[in-house]
Amino acid sequence: MEFKAQSIADFLGGTIEGDTNATVTDVAKIEEGRPGTLAFLSNPKYNKYLYETEATIVIVNQDFEPEAEVKPTLIRVPDAYKAFASLLELYQQAKGNKTGIENPSFIDASAKVGNDVYVGAFAYIGKNVRIGNHVKIYPQVYIGDNTIVGDDSILYAGVKIYEDTKIGEACIIHAGAVIGADGFGFAPLEDGTYQKIPQVGNVILEDYVEIGANTTIDCATMGSTIIRKGTKIDNLVQIAHNVEVGENTVMASQTGIAGSTKVGKNCQFGGQVGVAGHITIGDHVSLGAMSGVANSIKSNRTVLGAPAMDIAQAAKVFAIFRNLPQLREQLIDLGRQVAQIKTKLEE
Amino acid sequence: MEFKAQSIADFLGGTIEGDTNATVTDVAKIEEGRPGTLAFLSNPKYNKYLYETEATIVIVNQDFEPEAEVKPTLIRVPDAYKAFASLLELYQQAKGNKTGIENPSFIDASAKVGNDVYVGAFAYIGKNVRIGNHVKIYPQVYIGDNTIVGDDSILYAGVKIYEDTKIGEACIIHAGAVIGADGFGFAPLEDGTYQKIPQVGNVILEDYVEIGANTTIDCATMGSTIIRKGTKIDNLVQIAHNVEVGENTVMASQTGIAGSTKVGKNCQFGGQVGVAGHITIGDHVSLGAMSGVANSIKSNRTVLGAPAMDIAQAAKVFAIFRNLPQLREQLIDLGRQVAQIKTKLEE
Amino acid sequence: MEFKAQSIADFLGGTIEGDTNATVTDVAKIEEGRPGTLAFLSNPKYNKYLYETEATIVIVNQDFEPEAEVKPTLIRVPDAYKAFASLLELYQQAKGNKTGIENPSFIDASAKVGNDVYVGAFAYIGKNVRIGNHVKIYPQVYIGDNTIVGDDSILYAGVKIYEDTKIGEACIIHAGAVIGADGFGFAPLEDGTYQKIPQVGNVILEDYVEIGANTTIDCATMGSTIIRKGTKIDNLVQIAHNVEVGENTVMASQTGIAGSTKVGKNCQFGGQVGVAGHITIGDHVSLGAMSGVANSIKSNRTVLGAPAMDIAQAAKVFAIFRNLPQLREQLIDLGRQVAQIKTKLEE
Repeated sequence: MEFKAQSIADFLGGTIEGDTNATVTDVAKIEEGRPGTLAFLSNPKYNKYLYETEATIVIVNQDFEPEAEVKPTLIRVPDAYKAFASLLELYQQAKGNKTGIENPSFIDASAKVGNDVYVGAFAYIGKNVRIGNHVKIYPQVYIGDNTIVGDDSILYAGVKIYEDTKIGEACIIHAGAVIGADGFGFAPLEDGTYQKIPQVGNVILEDYVEIGANTTIDCATMGSTIIRKGTKIDNLVQIAHNVEVGENTVMASQTGIAGSTKVGKNCQFGGQVGVAGHITIGDHVSLGAMSGVANSIKSNRTVLGAPAMDIAQAAKVFAIFRNLPQLREQLIDLGRQVAQIKTKLEE
Repeated sequence: MEFKAQSIADFLGGTIEGDTNATVTDVAKIEEGRPGTLAFLSNPKYNKYLYETEATIVIVNQDFEPEAEVKPTLIRVPDAYKAFASLLELYQQAKGNKTGIENPSFIDASAKVGNDVYVGAFAYIGKNVRIGNHVKIYPQVYIGDNTIVGDDSILYAGVKIYEDTKIGEACIIHAGAVIGADGFGFAPLEDGTYQKIPQVGNVILEDYVEIGANTTIDCATMGSTIIRKGTKIDNLVQIAHNVEVGENTVMASQTGIAGSTKVGKNCQFGGQVGVAGHITIGDHVSLGAMSGVANSIKSNRTVLGAPAMDIAQAAKVFAIFRNLPQLREQLIDLGRQVAQIKTKLEE
Repeated sequence: MEFKAQSIADFLGGTIEGDTNATVTDVAKIEEGRPGTLAFLSNPKYNKYLYETEATIVIVNQDFEPEAEVKPTLIRVPDAYKAFASLLELYQQAKGNKTGIENPSFIDASAKVGNDVYVGAFAYIGKNVRIGNHVKIYPQVYIGDNTIVGDDSILYAGVKIYEDTKIGEACIIHAGAVIGADGFGFAPLEDGTYQKIPQVGNVILEDYVEIGANTTIDCATMGSTIIRKGTKIDNLVQIAHNVEVGENTVMASQTGIAGSTKVGKNCQFGGQVGVAGHITIGDHVSLGAMSGVANSIKSNRTVLGAPAMDIAQAAKVFAIFRNLPQLREQLIDLGRQVAQIKTKLEE
C-alpha cells in the first residue's frame, strides 16, 4: 500500500508542512525511521530523533515547535499519538480484510454461517456450528461440533476448537491455540494404572477476549472453563479445566493456571507464572514474572517470587538471598568472636 | 441429546423416586445443578446441596436417607459415583463417535488403514503408514511416512506425527501435539556457528498413553524416545530427544525434560517442572510444581524447589527463606549484643 | 533402506575387516547396537562396547587396535565420527527427499514458487508470497500474504507464518511453530478495559535459523522482530514483539524473552529461562536453566538463578540456600551462647 501526505492529512484532518506529495509505504518508530516510512512524535523525550530520522513523514502535535531544521514532511494534528494509532488500526484492517469462502473448505450441512464471513481453505466447520457475522476463519482452522462463534471474531490459521465451545463477539484467537481439549483428570487405580475421568464440560470465551498463539485452554470436567469479557491471554499459556478468569485480566506468556482455580478481574500476570489448583486470586492482583502461587491471594495485592510473597517482602528477601554468602560470613565471624569471649572468660 | 429418568434408571439398573418422565440434556456437579441437568451425590460432605440444587435428576446411593424435602427426581443405585462415571463415559463415547473417511483427505496409496476408522477432512496419511482398527484421526492431522498407529487410538485435530513414529493401542493425542520433531542437537564449530547433528531416531508411545495439547516430544538422535505404557502427559510439555519415561507416570502442564534423561514408572510431576539432561529419576518419585532437577533422584522420594530438595527439607528451607529479613535482623541484633559484651569486657 | 558393508566402505573410502556382504537397515549407538544396525567407535571410553555390541557393522578409526575378539564387521576410516555423521546426513536427506506439489493445496495465483519445491497437501500459500528454490513446505503449512521464504528452507507440517514474514535461506521450522502472531500489546483505558495496540510489524528470520516445534515468535509492533543468522531455537519458546536475537545463539526449550529485549550473538540459554522486556543481553552470555533475568547482562558472563546471578555467586548462594535450616540452627545456638555469656557476666 502507498499513501501520500495529502491523503493522510485529509484523513486525520491535519495540516501539512513540507511536500504534500511525499509518499510512504510503511510505518516506523521515529528512532528507526527509514525513507518511505511514516512515524509520529508525541513524547518530548523523543524530540531529538526528529532531527535525525530518515522517515519521510512525521505526525506531530499541533503546537510542536521544532528547535532545528526538520527534513521529513510534518503533519500537524491535535493528538499525534491518537492520530497515529487510528492510522495503524486502519492499516491493519486493510491488511486483514479477507472475505469469502475459499476452496476446498469443509462446512457441515447443519452449520449456520453468518454474513460477510471469511472461511479460508482447509478450514473445518463441524455439525451444528453457528458462526456469526463478519467472522474471519483462517485456513486450517478446526471448529468442532455445536460450537458457537460470535460476530466479528477472528480465528487465525490452524486454531483448534473442540466441540461445544462458546466464543463471544470480537474475540481474537491466534494461530495454533487449542480451545477445549480434555482436562487432565485421571483416577489412580490399585494396580498403579490410571483411569481417565471423562471431561464432558466445555470452554466459554466471553466477548473481546484475545488468546495467544499455541495457548491451550482445557474444557471443564463438567460445567465450563470460563474466560470473561475483555481478558487478554498471551502465547503458550496453559489454562486447566474448570478455571475461571475474570474480566479484563491480562496474562503474559507461558503462565499456567491449574485446575478449578478462580482468578479475579483486572489482574496482571507476568510471564511464566504458575498458579496451583483449587485456589482463588482476588481482583486487581499483580503477579510478577515467574511467581509461584500455592495459596489464595486477596484482592489488590502485588506479589512476586516462588513461593509468592508480598512485593515489599519479596524485595527484602531477594536482596538478602543474593547476599547469603556475606550473611553466612557474618554469622561465622560472630561465632569466632563469641568463642574468643568464652575463652577469655574461662581464663 | 436428551435422556428420561426411566432410560437412565434402566441403563444403571436403578430405582426411581419421583418423576419417571423427568428429562435431562446435560450433566452438572450437584452444587452447580441447573434445570435440565443430571447430577450425583456420593460424598456425604455434599449432602446439603441436594436440598438446594436445581438439577432435574440426581443419582444417589441405594441407602441414602434424605433429611429434608428433595425436589429433584432421585435414581438410587449401589454406587452413585461409579454409576455417574459410567454415564459420563457413555456420553463422551456417543459425542465422539465419528466414523468414515471425510473428503478431501490424503491417504497415500501405500498406507494401510484398518476397519471402522475415522479420517477427518484435510488429514494427511503418508507412505507405508499403518493405521489400526477403530482409530480416529481428526481433521488436519499429519502422519508422516512409516508411522504405525495402534487400534483404538485417537489423534485429535491438527496433531503432527513425524515419520517412523510408533503409537500403541488406545492412545489419545490432543490437538496440536507434535511427536517426533528433530531433537535439539548441534555441534559448535570453530567459527562460532553450529552444525546440525542429524536426528535419525524416532518416538515410541506405548499403549494407553495420553499426550496433551501442543505438547512436543522429540525424536531420538539415534534409537528411540520412549513413553511407556499408561503414562499421561499434560499440555505444553517438552520431552527432548532420547528421553525415556516409565509406565504410569503423570506429568502436569509445562514441564520440560532435557535430553537422554530416564524417568521411572509411577512418578508424579507437578506443573512447570524442569529436569536436566542425562540424569535418572527413579520410580514412584513425586516432584512438586516448579521443581528444578539438576541431579538424579532415587526411587520413592518426594522433592520440591529449584534446586530440588527432599520435601521435608524444602518445607524448612522455604519457611526460613520467606523470613530471611527477620533472620538477618536476629543476626544484626546478636552482633550488637556481642559488641556490647566485648565493650563491657574491655572496661 | 538397506546398505551393504561394501557400499558403505566405498562411499566413505574406507577398508573392510570382516564380511563385505554384512547388511544394515538402521543406525545405533555402539552401546545399543542390535543386529542389522551400523554403529561407530571414536571415543576410547567406549572401546569396551565393541566387544559386546550386537551391531552388524562398526566404523572405527584407521589406527584402532582391538584388544579382544570383535564380532561385527569393521570399516576403517581416517575419522570414524565424521564418517558416521556424513552417513547420517545422507540418510536424513534420503528420508526427507520430498518433491513436487501434492493435491489439494492452495497456491494463490500471485505467489511465485521456485524450482524443485515440495508443497504438501493442504498447504496454503497466500498472495504475493515468494518461495525460493529447493524449499520444502510440508502438509498443512500456512504462509500468509507477502511472505518470503529463501532457498533450501524447510517448513514442517502445520507451521503457521503470518503475513509479511521474511525467512532466509536454509532455515528449518518445525511443526506447529507460529511465526508473526500479534505482539501482546494493549493500552489500559480508564474503565478498566484494554484497547488493542495494532501490531503492524513483521518477523525476520535470517539464514540458517532453526525454530523448534510449537515455538511462537511474535511480529513487531512496528519494524521487525529479528532472529539473526545461524541462531537455533528449541521447542515451545516464546519470543515477544520487537525482540532481536543475535547470530549463532542457541536457546533451549520453554525459554521466554519479553518484548523489545536485545540478545547478543553466540549466547547459550538453558531451558525455561525467562528474560524481562526492554533489556540487553550481551554477546557470549550463558544462562543456566530456569534463570530469571530482570536486568541487562554484559558480554561474556555466565549466570544462573532467579534472580540471575554470576555463576560463582549463584553456586555459593544455592549451597547456603539448601542449608538454611542449619544456618538458622547455628544462629539460634549462637544466640544461646550469647545469652549464657550475658548471664555469667551479670552474676
